[in-house]
Amino acid sequence: MDSQGRVTAAVLVIGDEILSGRTQDTNLNAIARYLAPFGVDLAEARVVGDNPPDIIGALNALRSTYDYVITTGGIGPTHDDITADCVAEAFGVELYEHPDILAMMHARWGVEINAARRRMARVPVGGGLVNNPVQGPPGFQMENVFVLAGVPMIMRGMLEDVGPKMRTGAVVVAQTVRVEGSPEGAIAAPLEAVAKAHPALSLGSYPFFGEGGFGSNLVIRGRNAEEVEATVDELIAALDGVGAKAIYRVAPE
Amino acid sequence: MDSQGRVTAAVLVIGDEILSGRTQDTNLNAIARYLAPFGVDLAEARVVGDNPPDIIGALNALRSTYDYVITTGGIGPTHDDITADCVAEAFGVELYEHPDILAMMHARWGVEINAARRRMARVPVGGGLVNNPVQGPPGFQMENVFVLAGVPMIMRGMLEDVGPKMRTGAVVVAQTVRVEGSPEGAIAAPLEAVAKAHPALSLGSYPFFGEGGFGSNLVIRGRNAEEVEATVDELIAALDGVGAKAIYRVAPE
Repeated sequence: MDSQGRVTAAVLVIGDEILSGRTQDTNLNAIARYLAPFGVDLAEARVVGDNPPDIIGALNALRSTYDYVITTGGIGPTHDDITADCVAEAFGVELYEHPDILAMMHARWGVEINAARRRMARVPVGGGLVNNPVQGPPGFQMENVFVLAGVPMIMRGMLEDVGPKMRTGAVVVAQTVRVEGSPEGAIAAPLEAVAKAHPALSLGSYPFFGEGGFGSNLVIRGRNAEEVEATVDELIAALDGVGAKAIYRVAPE
Repeated sequence: MDSQGRVTAAVLVIGDEILSGRTQDTNLNAIARYLAPFGVDLAEARVVGDNPPDIIGALNALRSTYDYVITTGGIGPTHDDITADCVAEAFGVELYEHPDILAMMHARWGVEINAARRRMARVPVGGGLVNNPVQGPPGFQMENVFVLAGVPMIMRGMLEDVGPKMRTGAVVVAQTVRVEGSPEGAIAAPLEAVAKAHPALSLGSYPFFGEGGFGSNLVIRGRNAEEVEATVDELIAALDGVGAKAIYRVAPE
């Protein structure tokens, strides 16, 4: 937990394909949405390519700063899948072939397993498994680091086994007040006044533009649901005071 | 440039809304795709929330490691838009109201500009402007850091003014060999052999699963187009040797 008693997590997305632009990452968003109901705050995310110094450096920085780290990508059978090696090196331990994974592989592929597939049986010494209900071998957990697949369908399946392994925190409640037809510059003053009156809450303004018009979604987030609720009313009154049309909506959208 | 003579860049995505899962980031992917034809390698990305220590810490780490940093988000008129303040603090300089931005604001809103909008005229001392062809005030450049809006439509507009301000490198060429009906575990060995024979290239395997079947896209990337081209043929021959069906395609997809 950090100084405010929050349980925090970071995501480390591993893969050249994200940084080259070939692939649009969606795992970060899926993990953020998954963690929210557990009261675990996603506090930072990093994306690094398939090279050991970058992966190890980012992993060590994140695992020493946050309660949990979730990595995605780099656990397949090909030579560019080096996440397990990097996690082992970051923790200063060896990899070994986990007997449960070998047993699953034998059941699927028979007694002979080629070298590439055997690589997927490797887990750092001291690590536990993360269930994979979709296809292929499991992910693994090494202390406060969860190592998941990069393919979104498989990643989301593995994620279901991560929440139950985490210490959880107080859940953040979010509500949205939508302002239509007023630019951000016209509502910034009342928004800031309400934000300053509630330092325990986070108030954010997210402008939108489009065929349906323009305006902002003002999002009030906090762990005290009553204070969030009261602040919705307070914000609507403050917006009314500057002539802005405000519509209350329950978030997330 | 790094030790391999690459021109490198990092992206810093700023905003609670990305880490809460409220918003799916698409700016990272747009920037990665934009940079590729300039021969600028996106080497790392980070996502941080709307708080000064995280923004300043990440910005200082990235700007000292890579040739360029592109930030997105946090330059609007509301109290949660703190990117300009954080950039100034990271560089140890003051913010001042840029006369060109004030002139644009006067032209749009008249002589009286409210305090929230005036915040958007602030640029760190020593900074230059990044054109905004879409709407609202410009972004800015401070040494090797480009500060852009978070709204994707506006970010992409500003991005058009970033490439011409960068030192460019040798362009990376990418080509794809698509393998259908063979799992990654069956083609890992020939793929690795070809990768080891071409240390200057990066070979990645990106599996796919779906209604249309399964397989992998094998992506060959490098700065020497002839070597990339020759390696496509070599890889297809190696895959043929293990009975895999390979289809050559020009990437990016």
